[in-house]
Amino acid sequence: MITVLRIGHRPQRDKRITTHVALVARAFGADRIVISEDDERIRDTIASVVRSWGGSFSVEFKSWRSFLSTFDGTVVHLTMYGVPFEEAMDEVRDAPGDLCIVVGAEKVPPEIYQRATHNLAVGNQPHSEVSALALFLDRYFKGAEFSRRYPGAQMRIEPCARGKNVVGVNNGGAHDDT
Amino acid sequence: MITVLRIGHRPQRDKRITTHVALVARAFGADRIVISEDDERIRDTIASVVRSWGGSFSVEFKSWRSFLSTFDGTVVHLTMYGVPFEEAMDEVRDAPGDLCIVVGAEKVPPEIYQRATHNLAVGNQPHSEVSALALFLDRYFKGAEFSRRYPGAQMRIEPCARGKNVVGVNNGGAHDDT
Repeated sequence: MITVLRIGHRPQRDKRITTHVALVARAFGADRIVISEDDERIRDTIASVVRSWGGSFSVEFKSWRSFLSTFDGTVVHLTMYGVPFEEAMDEVRDAPGDLCIVVGAEKVPPEIYQRATHNLAVGNQPHSEVSALALFLDRYFKGAEFSRRYPGAQMRIEPCARGKNVVGVNNGGAHDDT
Repeated sequence: MITVLRIGHRPQRDKRITTHVALVARAFGADRIVISEDDERIRDTIASVVRSWGGSFSVEFKSWRSFLSTFDGTVVHLTMYGVPFEEAMDEVRDAPGDLCIVVGAEKVPPEIYQRATHNLAVGNQPHSEVSALALFLDRYFKGAEFSRRYPGAQMRIEPCARGKNVVGVNNGGAHDDT
């Protein structure tokens, strides 16, 4: 199981960025996001995406301290100050147990750097937790994230050279949209 | 030259997302971002990043219609409705002339789908223009974007397994930070 742990979310300032982090988590193959501060609007947005586009991604709210105190598995903290992420990828992929990927907003408590199994940098230039998470999961799944299935979707996209082609999916119970 | 064209920017709603798009453009190897609506705060933020971290990335404001009317080169529009981006990557990389990558906010005018040389999807699930741009540029540069140099930086990061190690760079004129 892959959990993205989003810390430092400030509801006014970060709503859209955290929503994009959650969408990337889902689209690139994580199973759930745990957000360290309550924000029901994000849960509603993601629930609506899951209803339409399928899969079983979930949103939970829990303090990072509480979550990490009982988490048993590999903790990857994505930070521009870390070591190059690709150097640790095989080790992370081969580690037994669950994976937790921590992505912070601007200030990350020093405890996180200590608690993490790996502090990994997706490049050492400033960019975004949205892109850092996407690149990490892309390398973790070796590009296979784009052919994932999302069972239970109400609709799916037929790729199209010009314009939009969205197809309704008739969900008769245990239907798979692919 | 690689230009990212950000369309549909709404200053109140999109400031932080557009800032992240600009940071990804810079960190993943584009040369400039053209934003279709004025927002000087974004120019200031990015100018400050360039001063600290180097390179020559620029921010310009121009309507997309005006920009594209005189642009001569390949136009890639990133959209979840498009064809799989990796299928077109060799063709885009080998095309002569400049490259413009269009990333929209929520609504993209139909003219963009027509004007684009390629409408490309980074997966057909909803995620983020921030992650879509990062993945596209990552594949375009085949991962080499993480070893780019950013001349003129005031500081740079020494990768570090725990914590932060930022080193000041003594810029004696044409100093290169790497």
